[in-house]
Amino acid sequence: MVNFYQGTSADTTPYDVLPSNSSREPTAPVAAIKFDKDAPYYDMTGDKFLIILNQHSFEDTKHFKHRPSPRNGTYKDEGRLRQVFHLLGFITFVFRNLKYKDIINCLTSIASLDHSRTSCICITILTHGDKGGKVFAADQPYKLSEVMDIFGKQATLINKPKLFFVQACRGGNMDSGHTVNLSTTCDSRLGAMTIYQSSETTCHYSIFEELMMVMEQEEAKTAAPSFNISNLLNLIKAWKNRWNAEDSDASLSQNKSFLTVPTHADTLVLCSTVEDFLSFRDGSGSWMIQALCNTIENNHQNENLLDMIIQMNRTVAYDKVTVLCKLKEMNKKKQMPETRFTLTKQLKF
Amino acid sequence: MVNFYQGTSADTTPYDVLPSNSSREPTAPVAAIKFDKDAPYYDMTGDKFLIILNQHSFEDTKHFKHRPSPRNGTYKDEGRLRQVFHLLGFITFVFRNLKYKDIINCLTSIASLDHSRTSCICITILTHGDKGGKVFAADQPYKLSEVMDIFGKQATLINKPKLFFVQACRGGNMDSGHTVNLSTTCDSRLGAMTIYQSSETTCHYSIFEELMMVMEQEEAKTAAPSFNISNLLNLIKAWKNRWNAEDSDASLSQNKSFLTVPTHADTLVLCSTVEDFLSFRDGSGSWMIQALCNTIENNHQNENLLDMIIQMNRTVAYDKVTVLCKLKEMNKKKQMPETRFTLTKQLKF
Repeated sequence: MVNFYQGTSADTTPYDVLPSNSSREPTAPVAAIKFDKDAPYYDMTGDKFLIILNQHSFEDTKHFKHRPSPRNGTYKDEGRLRQVFHLLGFITFVFRNLKYKDIINCLTSIASLDHSRTSCICITILTHGDKGGKVFAADQPYKLSEVMDIFGKQATLINKPKLFFVQACRGGNMDSGHTVNLSTTCDSRLGAMTIYQSSETTCHYSIFEELMMVMEQEEAKTAAPSFNISNLLNLIKAWKNRWNAEDSDASLSQNKSFLTVPTHADTLVLCSTVEDFLSFRDGSGSWMIQALCNTIENNHQNENLLDMIIQMNRTVAYDKVTVLCKLKEMNKKKQMPETRFTLTKQLKF
Repeated sequence: MVNFYQGTSADTTPYDVLPSNSSREPTAPVAAIKFDKDAPYYDMTGDKFLIILNQHSFEDTKHFKHRPSPRNGTYKDEGRLRQVFHLLGFITFVFRNLKYKDIINCLTSIASLDHSRTSCICITILTHGDKGGKVFAADQPYKLSEVMDIFGKQATLINKPKLFFVQACRGGNMDSGHTVNLSTTCDSRLGAMTIYQSSETTCHYSIFEELMMVMEQEEAKTAAPSFNISNLLNLIKAWKNRWNAEDSDASLSQNKSFLTVPTHADTLVLCSTVEDFLSFRDGSGSWMIQALCNTIENNHQNENLLDMIIQMNRTVAYDKVTVLCKLKEMNKKKQMPETRFTLTKQLKF
C-alpha cells in the first residue's frame, strides 16, 4: 500500500481560482511551454509539480546496520512544504514511507508523463541518509543520483528546472563550528526570520478533479489517504491519455531550428548539510526545510531561488545550534546546507 | 624552482588608483574587516586575492597511468583571469606547473597569513582532473578537498567568501546532450555574449611594492619570472611581520558577543563540468574560464556572483560544442559547468 496524497488544503474552494497563484485556468487546455533561449528566467507559467518522499518509519531489514529511528517532526516538514508550495501554485504529491522499488516505480511513472505543459518539477526527499549521496527508503538505502537520472532523461523536461531538496544526513560527523566576535552586541539566537502566515490562496486542476476526490486533511500527522500502486498507475495512465487526446501537437514547432543542451543542465540539488555531516530535526521539523519554507513564503514574489537559498543558508548557519540533546556531546553543534546547480536561467516562483 | 607571478599588467601606473576598483588606498593601513551578521552582502572593501595554479605540463611519474598531455591554451585562461580580476581589484599570484608538495606548501603559507584585512580569497585551478574530486599537480593527482581544507581552517578567513574555480575534467565521459526544437529561428552558435574590452584600471599595494618588483609581461605565454620556494616564504614572512607590526589589535573587538558559524560556510566551488565528464579547451583557452571572465567583465558592476555564474552556464551550455576533433567521436559534444556553494551572503565584486 502506498500512502498517496494530492495536496490541496482544507479551505479550497475549487472555482475561486486566483490566476496569479495558479499555473493555469481550470478547464482551458494550455499550449506546451515554449523554450526561449535568450530569456533570463525560466518560464514558470505552466504546471509545477512538487513530489514529497516523506520517510518517517523504517523497516528492520538486512540492508540497514541497525533499524533507522523514526523521524519525528517530519510531518511538520511535509505540512509546511505543502502549504508553501500550494501558495506557489504547485501540484503536490506526497508519498509516505515507500520502499525502494515503489519509489522508483512511482517516480518513473510521474516522469514518463508528457511534460510538455510542465514548467518545473521539485522532488523533496525527507529521510535518513549517509555518505556518498545515499538516502534511505523504508527498506534500504539508495542513491539520490538514481532519482535524478529518472527525471534527467525525460525528453519533455529538457530545458526545465528540476529541483531536488534533500533533508537527510550525509554521514555521522558533527560540526562544532567556528566562533567569531561580533562587532556589535547581537544575540545569535535572535536573528531568525519573522514568519508571517500568508493567507492561503486556492488553485484547482480540473484533470485531477475528475480523477480523484480532493482529500482534506487538517493535520498532516493523521494517517494519509491511501492508494495502492495500481491505482496510481491507472490514474497516471488516464491522465496521460487525456493529455494526448487534447492538442497533442502543440509541442510540434513549425520552425525546425535546433539547440543541443547538455544532459545535466537545469538541475539544482539542495542538501540540508555538507558531505560527511549530520543534519538536524526536532519535533517542529528540520532546520533546513523549515527555514527554506519561511524564506520562500516571505520572499518568493521578489527574489530568485538562489537568493532565497542564500537567505536560508544564513538562517541555518547563524541561528541554529543543537540544544538539550540526550547525549551531551551532541550539544552546540552546527549545520551548513549545501546547494549545487547547473541552472542556465534564473528561477522565480 | 617555482614559477611565481604577482600579477599587475603592463599599463599599471601605481599612483593612479581608482578606489571603486581598488580594495584600499595605496599607503593607508586599513582596519580588520568587521563582520556584520545582518548585512546581505559580503564586505568586499578589504584585500582580495586570486591564486592561480596553472598546470600546463606534467611529468612522467608512476602516479599517472600515462603522462598527461600538455594543456595548450591554458596561458590564455591565466592571462584572461589576471586581466579581469585585476579590474576587480584582486591581488593575483600565479603558480605554474607546481608539484604536489609545492602546491600544499605555497597555499599553506598564503593561508597562514593574518587575513584580518582580507575580504575574499579565490583559488583558480587550471589542470587535468579525474573522478572523485581529483586534480593533477605536475607530478601526481591530489584531492581538491585538500586545498579547500587549507583555507577552511584559517581563523581570519571565517565568514569570508572562499571561492574555488576549477577548470579540469572529472572523468572521461562525453555528453552528446539533448537536442530541442526552438520556437523561433535561432542559430545556437550565434548566442555567445558580446565581449567589450573594458579599459583597464589600476590598483596598487604598497606592501608588495616594497617587497618585490612588479613584473611586466605582455604575453602570458612567455616564460614567467621565477621565484623559488624559499624566496616566496621569505616574502610571506616579511609581509606577515609588517602586518603584525601595524595595528595588529584592530581585530580585537571591544564587544565580546559571539557568533558560532559552521566550519564549511561561505564557500563556493565552480567546476567546469559535472562529475564523471570531460571538459573542453582549445588554443583560445577553456570554455568555462573564458565564458566566466567575459561574463564577469561585462556584468560585475551590476550583478552578483551567482547571477553571473548562471549567465556563464548559459553560454557554455547553449553555445559551445566540440568541432574539428582529431577523433570523430569527440565531435558535437557538450559540457555543463556545476557550482556548489554554502554562501551565507550575496557576493558582489
